[in-house]
Amino acid sequence: MVHNITNYVVMNTTANALLAIGASPVMAHAVEEVAEMAAIAGALVLNIGTLSAAWIEAMAVAGHAAAERGTPIVLDPVGAGATRFRTATALKLLEELRPMVVRGNASEIRALVHDDQATKGVDSTLSSDQALEAARTVAARYGSVVVVSGATDLVVNRDRVARVFNGHPMMPRVTGLGCTATSLVGAFAAVNPTPGEAALHAMAVMGMAGELASRKALGPASFLVAFLDALYSMNEDDIRSLVRVEEA
Amino acid sequence: MVHNITNYVVMNTTANALLAIGASPVMAHAVEEVAEMAAIAGALVLNIGTLSAAWIEAMAVAGHAAAERGTPIVLDPVGAGATRFRTATALKLLEELRPMVVRGNASEIRALVHDDQATKGVDSTLSSDQALEAARTVAARYGSVVVVSGATDLVVNRDRVARVFNGHPMMPRVTGLGCTATSLVGAFAAVNPTPGEAALHAMAVMGMAGELASRKALGPASFLVAFLDALYSMNEDDIRSLVRVEEA
Amino acid sequence: MVHNITNYVVMNTTANALLAIGASPVMAHAVEEVAEMAAIAGALVLNIGTLSAAWIEAMAVAGHAAAERGTPIVLDPVGAGATRFRTATALKLLEELRPMVVRGNASEIRALVHDDQATKGVDSTLSSDQALEAARTVAARYGSVVVVSGATDLVVNRDRVARVFNGHPMMPRVTGLGCTATSLVGAFAAVNPTPGEAALHAMAVMGMAGELASRKALGPASFLVAFLDALYSMNEDDIRSLVRVEEA
Repeated sequence: MVHNITNYVVMNTTANALLAIGASPVMAHAVEEVAEMAAIAGALVLNIGTLSAAWIEAMAVAGHAAAERGTPIVLDPVGAGATRFRTATALKLLEELRPMVVRGNASEIRALVHDDQATKGVDSTLSSDQALEAARTVAARYGSVVVVSGATDLVVNRDRVARVFNGHPMMPRVTGLGCTATSLVGAFAAVNPTPGEAALHAMAVMGMAGELASRKALGPASFLVAFLDALYSMNEDDIRSLVRVEEA
Repeated sequence: MVHNITNYVVMNTTANALLAIGASPVMAHAVEEVAEMAAIAGALVLNIGTLSAAWIEAMAVAGHAAAERGTPIVLDPVGAGATRFRTATALKLLEELRPMVVRGNASEIRALVHDDQATKGVDSTLSSDQALEAARTVAARYGSVVVVSGATDLVVNRDRVARVFNGHPMMPRVTGLGCTATSLVGAFAAVNPTPGEAALHAMAVMGMAGELASRKALGPASFLVAFLDALYSMNEDDIRSLVRVEEA
Repeated sequence: MVHNITNYVVMNTTANALLAIGASPVMAHAVEEVAEMAAIAGALVLNIGTLSAAWIEAMAVAGHAAAERGTPIVLDPVGAGATRFRTATALKLLEELRPMVVRGNASEIRALVHDDQATKGVDSTLSSDQALEAARTVAARYGSVVVVSGATDLVVNRDRVARVFNGHPMMPRVTGLGCTATSLVGAFAAVNPTPGEAALHAMAVMGMAGELASRKALGPASFLVAFLDALYSMNEDDIRSLVRVEEA
């Protein structure tokens, strides 16, 4: 069971992705219940995509409940760098909760380290390698595994970097696939005690499902349908023939 | 017109399902307007899937406005049993509003009667018959028709039990189909003064649409597309050839 | 980049539509960040579909930030006329922000001028021409271009009226396509300084995508998939062969 405190835009897509891989999603954000929900979850996913003050409080409460029990926390700093509110919230959650994994695009990960950028919204035009140094800094500073999504995904674990080459250019044309990646990392971290491995596997599964989907898609919406179907039906043969990762 | 105060995850799916069957969905939760909206609706659907204090207040206000006019109220106690907040909220709404129909999975319906369970999130691993006694207790205590969803759906009306055998195993792999069932019960209750019948018909239509969808689906996402299409296009011949219910 | 403060039901669909046409959507509603977000956006879209007091405040703050910079504001008065709260909020935003474009169905546009109607929820049973006089009044009073959606769309700019004949009867059977039209108007207004033209082009693109989608759809859900795919893949040849507009 994966407890998500996430944004309104992607709740449906991420819930369907979690169900497709056999996980059980819960979305709950009330301060009255998040500690209890996080305590029965296998992982807690925090996503700041559509923030407000009440939700930040709930994230902190849920995060502390998860941390107390050693439940993996995964953070998605959506739009960090676009507004000071988002950057500050992401940094506050990093400081307080020391999440096991942080996943963002290159702009977002850079914004956790550098002030000097002007992220335009929630999409990134940088390559993931342009955030490699920033990812290393975040990993060192907070003890988190840092995933930088992009055409190539980086999984940065202290000094080591693993790379996932799977994926498809249609993926950034579908809303919520970054957030979905974060939730899948949560699901994998719930069952794999090695966070770097959980993150690597989740990102590879995302990318492979994207490749499978591209064979059937006529555009971004049929791509999303085929992507979720592929998450459900992907088997060991698919994985063996498709996987393209470079371990750390 | 069906007024829904429901959770963020399923709003889009339930709105599309209501439109597909020819109903007109409205989602409105502001305490400033819910009484007025409920007063022009044919049914009010309350769903506690992503609760917060402000929404509970709105549910109570809308519920009283609906009750005053005899407008059917349908309650979905999503995740009852998973946290005390959800169980307490579901019980409070039952006590105060005496909804015409309550629909949940077996864990949720049991949680309305028994303290002793540990629901893991919002999905149930029990069969619907394991909640039959609890459903009878809820029906007797609050005067509601109680629907327990599962491989077989139960429609419990005082001492009588009707059963719907329609459905497909892919349905629990799509988020929001339980909540969609609740909204369809609302739509049927808006036009059928016999709540047990409205609930039975809505659940049978859900199940039959699932069976039609399974013929085209390659996974849960194409299943959902085909399911909503089937709700739209299902005709009398489909119903005659597919329906498998046992009346009370 | 299009900053949307919009309703929960349609966020996912509108974000996907904006990505499909090559725009970059952002959804942000916290009063702490909306001014900053609106200031980096190319357009601001305000949609009152699932209102609450905190969101109205955020809309005003974002609106003033956009207005200061001359960023186009597009307003969607969802459900105006259904409750006094919605009508009053729509009128307050019109008065304060003087949006560049207002888009609604015939009931909603009429409700901005007349008290005497009883809108049933968020769907309209009137033809767009039944709101032509009201649209003219709104255009004159607030200096906005007014779009009335319907089987024929009207784009009312002071005394001139343009008409879009593109579209398909399945469109009102899919939730959020009206709201999606509003967001596309925002995207077009971000790059076209003539608001009447931006609105006309956006509505024509919506209608043409609907016609393309109808060739593949088996019901409303496969229609939506094909519609979003068509927004992505529509080319100049499609437009040349399909477009049916009457310029003002």
